[in-house]
Amino acid sequence: MNDADGLQVERCVACHKDSPRVTAVEQAKLLSAIPGWAVVREGDVARLRRVFPFGAYRQALAFTQRVGEIADVEDHHPVVLTEARRVTVTWWTHAIGGLHRNDFIMSAKTGTVFEEVVAGERETGKSR
Amino acid sequence: MNDADGLQVERCVACHKDSPRVTAVEQAKLLSAIPGWAVVREGDVARLRRVFPFGAYRQALAFTQRVGEIADVEDHHPVVLTEARRVTVTWWTHAIGGLHRNDFIMSAKTGTVFEEVVAGERETGKSR
Repeated sequence: MNDADGLQVERCVACHKDSPRVTAVEQAKLLSAIPGWAVVREGDVARLRRVFPFGAYRQALAFTQRVGEIADVEDHHPVVLTEARRVTVTWWTHAIGGLHRNDFIMSAKTGTVFEEVVAGERETGKSR
Repeated sequence: MNDADGLQVERCVACHKDSPRVTAVEQAKLLSAIPGWAVVREGDVARLRRVFPFGAYRQALAFTQRVGEIADVEDHHPVVLTEARRVTVTWWTHAIGGLHRNDFIMSAKTGTVFEEVVAGERETGKSR
């Protein structure tokens, strides 16, 4: 499957402490498929993080809600920081203390949700 | 108005950079009306913070959503950190770089939202 096209339609697999972290080579390849995301290290744990800007708080809140919904579907939960005009989303896999392919899948899905929320807002704006 | 009873039904007033911070005496009195909240200092700015625990992610997400809705009604926006089983809410007034009575009002309202979300969950649980 082509990562750039396909990552966002993949499903998460169940994870346990022996699940594989992505290798450095896989990480570089997967990162190129999720523009805007960066690997950040906190307390020795690699995580994927992206800041999403919004023109209005209700958009930021709608985004947070939809990210939460896709998270619950996959039973894989990010940390989401919701502020007045931006939302910061962080994905990593607690069970392995680092990054699993699941995290890249969820980051890709999160990017799609962002595009949908912003497009939805444009649509709403037009109809007014 | 009795702070313990009335804070949560007060409305926020419009704030500008010359609006008054709460005094130390007011702060102590107002804090006693919002159990669970603590004053934290970050970069010289006092803020009100409380961590809300949840048994399930969908509860945490519902809480985040409802806190966002009351924030938008009052046009006063917190920072909300949504994790798998807990939500951390932080209120302060950017315009004055500290705490305004508005922040205590919003903290009281946030506490009520928490009680409602938890009570709603119990109700849902019963009906299953």
